[in-house]
Amino acid sequence: MKVEIRPLTRSDFAAYGDVLETAGATHYPINEGTAERFHDLARVDVESGGGRVLINIFIGQKQPRPIIIKMMERHPLGTQCFMPLREQSYLVVVADGETAPEPGSLRAFLVRGTQGVNYYRNVWHHPLLVLEADSPFLVIDRGGEGINLEEAYFPEPAVLDW
Amino acid sequence: MKVEIRPLTRSDFAAYGDVLETAGATHYPINEGTAERFHDLARVDVESGGGRVLINIFIGQKQPRPIIIKMMERHPLGTQCFMPLREQSYLVVVADGETAPEPGSLRAFLVRGTQGVNYYRNVWHHPLLVLEADSPFLVIDRGGEGINLEEAYFPEPAVLDW
Repeated sequence: MKVEIRPLTRSDFAAYGDVLETAGATHYPINEGTAERFHDLARVDVESGGGRVLINIFIGQKQPRPIIIKMMERHPLGTQCFMPLREQSYLVVVADGETAPEPGSLRAFLVRGTQGVNYYRNVWHHPLLVLEADSPFLVIDRGGEGINLEEAYFPEPAVLDW
Repeated sequence: MKVEIRPLTRSDFAAYGDVLETAGATHYPINEGTAERFHDLARVDVESGGGRVLINIFIGQKQPRPIIIKMMERHPLGTQCFMPLREQSYLVVVADGETAPEPGSLRAFLVRGTQGVNYYRNVWHHPLLVLEADSPFLVIDRGGEGINLEEAYFPEPAVLDW
């Protein structure tokens, strides 16, 4: 199965998470006008089961083309937010599904390097898919007790090409 | 008064906050080796008075040179974390002081574009000081009730030059 790749928009992604970008965000000047604040771009939800916020850096490795999607994962106890640190575009793949991702519902997005994504709890998504070597991201997710990772493997992989 | 500018290191900044960088961080491979996780780089502390985590983007305006430091601010209810989104270096100024910043204790740091800073609660710091036009940062701070900003003006400004 080949998955179509579309540009990421807030409306297309609304069921899966937040899009962090300045366009369309509430903003106002601060610090005597020396900075503009684009305010409250993502809902952080990590407190289930005594969780706490973690701030991390992920360095992603370039994926071979085409990209084979053979599994998906989700985090039942917390949101997970990715923001690129080098303005490099990347790919995001999500899927619907109550207990397992439905391959027919896979949706792939090309994300601009000025956009971040914040996956809601329990949203099936593929691990980080970057298009350039050693791509750094700031990642805001959950630390604490409990099992916060589920993985599901597809009987037949899907293919991302562009 | 002229303030010396030094390169930012974790040890010099330890009393004021965290330095977010991959060097010296706990790290391990994830996602079948396609990414490296540099883990738990900053202590987020925003829950005082019913606070919650906010994720924002700040766009900073280039400062004229030399930079005149006439005031400092601090946040009594929460940490505030800045991570550059374009790998541009910037300046950080902090000060000691229980109720007001002591001008003699001002410390200025040149921060590499791959480093973020997380100011601890009640640490006196200058608002964002960027060196290039329209510099974007991801900022993680506190939302909620209560007064989370104190400002203090110096009788005599300090000067940053380099």
